[in-house]
Amino acid sequence: MKSFVPVPEGSDFPIENCPYGVFSTKDNAKHRIGVAIGDSILDLSAVAHLFDGPALKNHQDVFKQETLNAFMGLPRAAWLEARQTIQKLLSDDVTTLKGDSQLRAKAIVSQKDATMHLPAKIGDYTDFYSSIYHATNVGIMFRGKENALMPNWKWLPVGYHGRASSVIPSGTPVRRPRGQLKPEGAAEPTYGASRLLDFELEMAFFVGGPPTKLGEPIPIDKTEEHIFGMVLMNDWSARDIQAWEYVPLGPFLGKSFGTTISPWVVSMEALRPFMMANPEQDPAPLSYLAHSDPYTVDINLGVTIKPEGGSEHLVCKTSFKHLYWTLKQQLAHHTVNGCNVNPGDLMGSGTVSGPEEGAYGSMLELSWRGAKVVAVGDQTRKFLQDGDEVNLIGYCEKDNLRIGFGECRGEVLPAL
Amino acid sequence: MKSFVPVPEGSDFPIENCPYGVFSTKDNAKHRIGVAIGDSILDLSAVAHLFDGPALKNHQDVFKQETLNAFMGLPRAAWLEARQTIQKLLSDDVTTLKGDSQLRAKAIVSQKDATMHLPAKIGDYTDFYSSIYHATNVGIMFRGKENALMPNWKWLPVGYHGRASSVIPSGTPVRRPRGQLKPEGAAEPTYGASRLLDFELEMAFFVGGPPTKLGEPIPIDKTEEHIFGMVLMNDWSARDIQAWEYVPLGPFLGKSFGTTISPWVVSMEALRPFMMANPEQDPAPLSYLAHSDPYTVDINLGVTIKPEGGSEHLVCKTSFKHLYWTLKQQLAHHTVNGCNVNPGDLMGSGTVSGPEEGAYGSMLELSWRGAKVVAVGDQTRKFLQDGDEVNLIGYCEKDNLRIGFGECRGEVLPAL
Repeated sequence: MKSFVPVPEGSDFPIENCPYGVFSTKDNAKHRIGVAIGDSILDLSAVAHLFDGPALKNHQDVFKQETLNAFMGLPRAAWLEARQTIQKLLSDDVTTLKGDSQLRAKAIVSQKDATMHLPAKIGDYTDFYSSIYHATNVGIMFRGKENALMPNWKWLPVGYHGRASSVIPSGTPVRRPRGQLKPEGAAEPTYGASRLLDFELEMAFFVGGPPTKLGEPIPIDKTEEHIFGMVLMNDWSARDIQAWEYVPLGPFLGKSFGTTISPWVVSMEALRPFMMANPEQDPAPLSYLAHSDPYTVDINLGVTIKPEGGSEHLVCKTSFKHLYWTLKQQLAHHTVNGCNVNPGDLMGSGTVSGPEEGAYGSMLELSWRGAKVVAVGDQTRKFLQDGDEVNLIGYCEKDNLRIGFGECRGEVLPAL
Repeated sequence: MKSFVPVPEGSDFPIENCPYGVFSTKDNAKHRIGVAIGDSILDLSAVAHLFDGPALKNHQDVFKQETLNAFMGLPRAAWLEARQTIQKLLSDDVTTLKGDSQLRAKAIVSQKDATMHLPAKIGDYTDFYSSIYHATNVGIMFRGKENALMPNWKWLPVGYHGRASSVIPSGTPVRRPRGQLKPEGAAEPTYGASRLLDFELEMAFFVGGPPTKLGEPIPIDKTEEHIFGMVLMNDWSARDIQAWEYVPLGPFLGKSFGTTISPWVVSMEALRPFMMANPEQDPAPLSYLAHSDPYTVDINLGVTIKPEGGSEHLVCKTSFKHLYWTLKQQLAHHTVNGCNVNPGDLMGSGTVSGPEEGAYGSMLELSWRGAKVVAVGDQTRKFLQDGDEVNLIGYCEKDNLRIGFGECRGEVLPAL
């Protein structure tokens, strides 16, 4: 497959990727749905009339919306058909778009002229806790080696409800939060700016398919029909606020001051070549969580920090394959009680850490709760400083094919 | 004040109340905004043109929406003006509506012909844990008397993010959830229907005012501008699912199978005559949480259970005045980290329990975790049975004025 739109070598967005996003341009402030191709965007609102297959011909309006929710809400058959149509439109061998210079001028936009927005209106945002290395690391730090994993952890994908309103697209700065802090040994809490600001390297998937009904679980063998695609996610965390507030009802203000996602949603179809056998699970999961088809994706992940005025330095390198629970298991579990899900719901993986030290997905783990320093170029960090810019990296690579996620970037602003 | 629309004695909805809701009728399936008056509804979509004061004359369209979000999103001055206009329209002394039989026929609908819907599209739903009696009871049961209240409890209004998609209006049945259960002493969890199904007697407020910006807290002396009004809320809980899943990230599937709210939103203005001094707080709250103006409301609360084929029996009687943290403190705390809030966000109080045994707001507390039985007429209960219908009651009463909340009802359906 080759596109007539130039795709620079090493681009995250070859024609095999075709991720969806929402953008606007200087001369057109309207939010439109687009597909990334090389350094360009195919504006789907300009080519909506060309989606003429059986699943989409009566739903072309979904490509004229200001968010992806309506398109996500169509059945999976429509997503597959859309992908085929888009790849055909972008193909070097097909003249529909390539040969129509007027349409091309309208429909192909340069990414550097575009501002990216949240891809969907997020109804509910859930965050899981599915990396066994991360859960074990945090467990050792807070409860000791013997009690690191809670008794439920290997039986179910532990998760919690997060705050949807504070999910923001890559590029939006994040303000260091204020709140209640109670440093170890202090007699009483005080009010102030968080001192232990952290990133969390996560990925998340968007729910798709028609809304489910309250009271009706999604069986594990139907979960694929409700997993639309994935993004990178930085679940910014204020460790000191979190430590004091989170007992007994879980994380709250330590998280809800900002959660950054990458703007391009990579479909599960684009990731399929990189799916591999799922991790061994012992104990065997209960039947409602059992599935044997490979749904673990080998996505190379990394985190860079760029100190104010400095340059980017990699502080962590890991892979999404280290997730213990699959996305299918997460969704089957989430709905086993009858909880309803809607297109545009966002489900985070939890921090993705690998087995080795350099593969830990948070400063909390990299600095082992501040016990050691992390090198950032010629500087060091235990937690994040004002002016630090954090970026997440994610891409699959194999046989000269690279499917990437683009940027998931945010700068730390000083507390108000 | 007297309305030309009949208000039966003991009605929850005299002209001093004027709560807002969203309804449809058999002959008009469109969701419309209405105000309850006696056994009737004033259809605001039919009288939108009469809101001609300075704050509303350019925003009459908010009364033609299918949810209250747009109206809630106007500044507080608009809510106050709307209340004045509505009371004038309904007044026995004013002929605008009373004297216009054609308009009256269009605008006054009988409640028994109406179906009530959710009053707003709920963006985010947060649940606090602000009753000291409830938190103490649960703490004693799970951690013993000495450690009943966690160290943070008296310093901040503990809360957590809930699931917005599963919030439903009164009258919607709730299906007993399935999930992972691990009865005490069992070696491994099993999959099955919850055996320990419970109600939680709560109230909740809707956030109003223009959306706030991420990174910008609401100072405590501005919180009133963002508290639109209140509803009853039954935070249905599956105690066995909850007990196994909730460590360390908080309640998840033990709650997200259904949360029932009463459909009429009672404005804070209607509740003002029943506001009283706030409870003494020791230790004194940190400055960002400190306020001295009375914002504690004496709302009589109760819960009835109606076994299948039987009649309603009161199992609990308490008051909203037992809340330790005020709604203003909840909202100031929620946003102190810069978390943004939107009109239509819902914030629950947590279970409201009073100091005496009969004033406990959940079966967990009433049956003391199943240690004793609760009388329901000539039957007994430790937790809820299939076919039980639970209703919450809430009203203020003083000097011949009754401001009520209507019903917050739901029947337990057997597990699928």
